[in-house]
Amino acid sequence: MSDRKLTHHDPVAVLGLGPMGQALATALISAGIPTIVWNRTPERAEPLVTRGAVAAPTVAGAVRAAAVVVTCLRSPAAVDSVLAAHDDWAGRTVIDVTTGQPDEARKLAKWAEGNGVDLVKGAILTPTPTIGTPAAVTLWCGDRPTVDAVMPTLTAFGGTPAHLGPDPGATAAYEMALFDLFGTAVTGLLHAFALASAEGIDPRSFARYAAGIAPMLAELVGRFADDIAADQFPGDRSTVASVGASITHVIEATDAHGIDSGMLRAARSVIERTIAAGHGEDGLARLAQVLTPARSV
Amino acid sequence: MSDRKLTHHDPVAVLGLGPMGQALATALISAGIPTIVWNRTPERAEPLVTRGAVAAPTVAGAVRAAAVVVTCLRSPAAVDSVLAAHDDWAGRTVIDVTTGQPDEARKLAKWAEGNGVDLVKGAILTPTPTIGTPAAVTLWCGDRPTVDAVMPTLTAFGGTPAHLGPDPGATAAYEMALFDLFGTAVTGLLHAFALASAEGIDPRSFARYAAGIAPMLAELVGRFADDIAADQFPGDRSTVASVGASITHVIEATDAHGIDSGMLRAARSVIERTIAAGHGEDGLARLAQVLTPARSV
Ligand SMILES: NC(=O)c1ccc[n+]([C@@H]2O[C@H](COP(=O)([O-])OP(=O)(O)OC[C@H]3O[C@@H](n4cnc5c(N)ncnc54)[C@H](OP(=O)(O)O)[C@@H]3O)[C@@H](O)[C@H]2O)c1
Ligand SMILES: NC(=O)c1ccc[n+]([C@@H]2O[C@H](COP(=O)([O-])OP(=O)(O)OC[C@H]3O[C@@H](n4cnc5c(N)ncnc54)[C@H](OP(=O)(O)O)[C@@H]3O)[C@@H](O)[C@H]2O)c1
Repeated sequence: MSDRKLTHHDPVAVLGLGPMGQALATALISAGIPTIVWNRTPERAEPLVTRGAVAAPTVAGAVRAAAVVVTCLRSPAAVDSVLAAHDDWAGRTVIDVTTGQPDEARKLAKWAEGNGVDLVKGAILTPTPTIGTPAAVTLWCGDRPTVDAVMPTLTAFGGTPAHLGPDPGATAAYEMALFDLFGTAVTGLLHAFALASAEGIDPRSFARYAAGIAPMLAELVGRFADDIAADQFPGDRSTVASVGASITHVIEATDAHGIDSGMLRAARSVIERTIAAGHGEDGLARLAQVLTPARSV
Repeated sequence: MSDRKLTHHDPVAVLGLGPMGQALATALISAGIPTIVWNRTPERAEPLVTRGAVAAPTVAGAVRAAAVVVTCLRSPAAVDSVLAAHDDWAGRTVIDVTTGQPDEARKLAKWAEGNGVDLVKGAILTPTPTIGTPAAVTLWCGDRPTVDAVMPTLTAFGGTPAHLGPDPGATAAYEMALFDLFGTAVTGLLHAFALASAEGIDPRSFARYAAGIAPMLAELVGRFADDIAADQFPGDRSTVASVGASITHVIEATDAHGIDSGMLRAARSVIERTIAAGHGEDGLARLAQVLTPARSV
């Protein structure tokens, strides 16, 4: 890894200008960092050029002009194809914030090692409007000196950058588990809006009560963590079987309206498996224990 | 409907002493209301008798002694069998808080009409520890005078009782849609704990970040409601296709650990349907529109 210390004067390139790439580039510009942008579809660079970025016509051009290269793309496969578009990456620090699996991040670390690149792998846990504000939550992994060297960039993205250590798969592991929750909850929320609407409830009336689920969920996160850590699943507040009965009513209501009930059925099948294992009168956290494979890597 | 005005001196019976029935009976006792309890498995009445309730040995005994009868059971079918256990309900007000579908509530209203019973149908939207506290959220439907007459009971349950009007199916419609969200989000949360644990992340470390999803969800509820009400789905923050790509990574990570990926696959199938309909670059609220049947009852 290089010993170079980077400052606010070292140019940073952002490759990938979807909603998140746009937000990251905007935050860099606002922090006064010279910002180079590139996107496969070049038009997406325009608003950033207006704000003060320099648009590079090619990946190679962007990489040559920058000390630090941020990749923010649809998938690790897109990252691979962008990396393959240039053949001399030596001396650069690559900060990859593309969502993917831990093993893909470890593969990227191998590529970095073989190409004289310092890698910082990251996960962004909050939506685009938080970027550049104290509300951003970002996780980073990589060698401590490498992460420290790009602190001006990470700090520009907002919040307090959290360093999880050297394992290049560490942030992806968190990101997978958090996106598991986020993707499921958000799809469930939109399903609930559809069911409410089929029941004649207007979206804003429904939203008033639906927003109340959020603090309940926050409280449950802590309580479930305690139950799982203690390997104890008291059913004194609500039981697996009771929740299963309620989900069954929701499935019936959903089917009656001709709405897709796939997610609810999949949730109920986990509950049924838990009941069949003799845990119907336990608290809901028991589901995590039933889902966790006996021996995992 | 009877014109009788009920006071704190009129005895209230609670039939069904699962976690929620226990909480409701405890709240009545704390409010100084004479409380009669009955449960199919009689032992569950014991802690309430210690607190000052009178245990009735039969449904008939409980109903004879009470002006108001609260039913809090596993399902509408259980309610039916408890109602069938006594043959003279005339003059009673029944408050049913059992989770079920709107049509089941309407059927119950027919039974009430045929048996000289005033019915208040309710939905309890918050967990047992909120009962009897300002944090409780409860919805009620039924004729205004009937609901007003039992206000001492509803108030004892906590929070500010909300009256949705006379349609006996009204609270069940809200409850179905809200439980759709709650059941999916909570099962997704426990799945995420399982994935985190398979990735070597300890539950309490995971919980620190998972709790951060809750305020994001609360914010999204309001924004999705606006998008759906406006029938406009801007993809400027994050798109259906991008979320689909992330869910695909989570499915792969889940499969790699041998963890059930049913809910994630069902969520992705809704996303794929939305992309196939040409809405991949829209915002996520588009899913609700794709899920909602063209013409619903
Ligand atoms: N948006 C959020 O709220 C958010 C939050 C946390 C994390 N993230 C993560 O951030 C990353 C980017 O997300 P996003 O929301 O900005 O949008 P996105 O839709 O996931 O990604 C769009 C970007 O990927 C590019 N791309 C896709 N395939 C490519 C390929 N084969 N070669 C080159 N470029 C390719 C697109 O270029 P074109 O413009 O040419 O199509 C565009 O720049 C994702 O991994 C996402 O999970 C996003
Ligand atoms: N717990 C919560 O946080 C919560 C929150 C909101 C709404 N609710 C709703 O409140 C209702 C009650 O829930 P809960 O958590 O108290 O526990 P539950 O497990 O759903 O219901 C347990 C009660 O139902 C009785 N029961 C079941 N089948 C019966 C039958 N065929 N005949 C007579 N009694 C029968 C049980 O009697 P035994 O003891 O003899 O088995 C017990 O009294 C449900 O509809 C639930 O959805 C609960």
